[in-house]
Amino acid sequence: MTVLQPVRKTPHFADTQIEMAHGAGGIASRRLVEGLIGSYLSNPILQTFADAATISVNGSNVATTADGFVVKPLRFPGGSIGELAVNGTLNDLAVSAAKPIALMATLILEAGLPTSTLESEVEAMAIAARKAGVCIVGGDTKVVEHGKADGMYVSTFGIGLVDGRVRIDAASIQPGDRILLSGPIGAHGITILLARGELDLQADLVSDTRPVWPFVSALMDRCASGVRWMRDPTRGGVATSLNELVRGTAYGVALYEDCVPMHDAVRGACELLGLDPLHIANEGQFLAVVAAEHADAALAAVRGVAGGEEAILIGEVRAEPKQRVIGINGYGGTRVIDMLVGDPLPRIC
Amino acid sequence: MTVLQPVRKTPHFADTQIEMAHGAGGIASRRLVEGLIGSYLSNPILQTFADAATISVNGSNVATTADGFVVKPLRFPGGSIGELAVNGTLNDLAVSAAKPIALMATLILEAGLPTSTLESEVEAMAIAARKAGVCIVGGDTKVVEHGKADGMYVSTFGIGLVDGRVRIDAASIQPGDRILLSGPIGAHGITILLARGELDLQADLVSDTRPVWPFVSALMDRCASGVRWMRDPTRGGVATSLNELVRGTAYGVALYEDCVPMHDAVRGACELLGLDPLHIANEGQFLAVVAAEHADAALAAVRGVAGGEEAILIGEVRAEPKQRVIGINGYGGTRVIDMLVGDPLPRIC
Repeated sequence: MTVLQPVRKTPHFADTQIEMAHGAGGIASRRLVEGLIGSYLSNPILQTFADAATISVNGSNVATTADGFVVKPLRFPGGSIGELAVNGTLNDLAVSAAKPIALMATLILEAGLPTSTLESEVEAMAIAARKAGVCIVGGDTKVVEHGKADGMYVSTFGIGLVDGRVRIDAASIQPGDRILLSGPIGAHGITILLARGELDLQADLVSDTRPVWPFVSALMDRCASGVRWMRDPTRGGVATSLNELVRGTAYGVALYEDCVPMHDAVRGACELLGLDPLHIANEGQFLAVVAAEHADAALAAVRGVAGGEEAILIGEVRAEPKQRVIGINGYGGTRVIDMLVGDPLPRIC
Repeated sequence: MTVLQPVRKTPHFADTQIEMAHGAGGIASRRLVEGLIGSYLSNPILQTFADAATISVNGSNVATTADGFVVKPLRFPGGSIGELAVNGTLNDLAVSAAKPIALMATLILEAGLPTSTLESEVEAMAIAARKAGVCIVGGDTKVVEHGKADGMYVSTFGIGLVDGRVRIDAASIQPGDRILLSGPIGAHGITILLARGELDLQADLVSDTRPVWPFVSALMDRCASGVRWMRDPTRGGVATSLNELVRGTAYGVALYEDCVPMHDAVRGACELLGLDPLHIANEGQFLAVVAAEHADAALAAVRGVAGGEEAILIGEVRAEPKQRVIGINGYGGTRVIDMLVGDPLPRIC
């Protein structure tokens, strides 16, 4: 049931102090998590960049996930930290093909936080959990002095029962497999950026935060045997998720860049700010790799669920170039799409 | 498997903002958690002041617990935030009679945190987990700006398999049951207080932080059927834990105050500072209510484990006064022992 941890490997992390980029979900985060944290906590179950870990409980496969939330501002168009904490954790379970059993949460509150703010977030958590048919069964509350936090931070933990019909495994992908995306990208990250009011930009945009389980569930009902891998492209965006996918395989991904849907406001803001929309965080989308022969059925399944109408196939797995994500535009031009570098949008979740 | 949440009850929490005392584990914490948080998140599994929640996973009873850690300073004599986070969560499982299956953790880091500090804490977590034979199977890392946290905060989540031999239930206690305490009280809270260096006091004292599972395990092996309830008296101390015990029952507790063991340094610091040692946090002790006929065997079981030599019976369940904890001293004097009020020692865990 439990596995003893091996002796630690030598840490490979040269930075002398923690910077914002180490929390951005891109290359710096990977260096920190793999180079330092993973060198001490290494064990057969821990996959440092997976969304959830699968453990065996008396023979049942149970997915567990943990997420910290420090989004700023606490409320933004389309959502808030409490709602995000619940849906973000549920989504990590969903892309692990796990139906939630229970959630827990810890709150770190800054002294002086208005009770009404806390109440709004607890209510948002309750509503999001209730919509998903799951209970928050426990938690913990700590308070730190004024100036030692930023309103409130939330950590959520979820456990779910893995659907036995699918086996989510990056190593199972094959050349020819298709990449399915559930809808337009970048709405969450750009909404947070605009909500801070630091830029003289306004747009009619709301975060895409929502549970992805209804789409995942429809996908599994329709073509469980064709689903090889899923991921919700949050911090670091679609580009980082796809790089994480190919990294552990012998294959690459070709992304049809012109097919990737996004709101005009996201495209415009990214052009103005020099950001790549493929690096912007999403909180209500997921990526799936499906076998070619199941691709049409998979797309129909997701499109058949309200809110999934814009689902689309955005690329495919290819034999070459290995462990690379290549963007192909409408004119046949290509570019290497890398993981996020630096932290252009701190504290987006 | 899941239980839909009922509509919310009306919150009963009149404070307009969050204060340090709301995180201290005493009466103010209870008002916040029951009056506000519980009114939104109420469900049949959530027991707002229990250490862990028990859920059913395909028929297996699984205990889950979540804990936030904001201790200041990060390192103190005898322990540190990383070690505390792991052992604190393991102890919440232990007093739920649950053997750990897996741990997860989220880290909220302040930009500018020295890497060496983070590394020490990750190593402390790894060592504590390895000692308990359990893996940290996943987690999340977020970074906030310098000045928006205090070094680092840790939230840990644990799941464990409930030992089927015991049934931990406050409602099962009976007059005549004995209260077992595993060892001297107050060492953690007073150590933290002294480690801050704000008082002109020094003492040869270290935190009692340690896993209590070895003692709990020995207790269950020896007299599982006699164990009615367990709790680790952390924030709020022994006084708060015992008040929480009797609160949901028709009985009271008589505490033989002169029997409660503590280091001279704890007694001395409490006298100087006007603190009640029964309100001081412990991180390596537990309380158990055992049936009278099992009390001697229970005590022998705990004393038989290295580090449990000072275990002692400190009181008994009585029919009167209902829902009260009464202290009895060596001269026969009595006093009402209440839950912690206010927050004399902020951020002790």
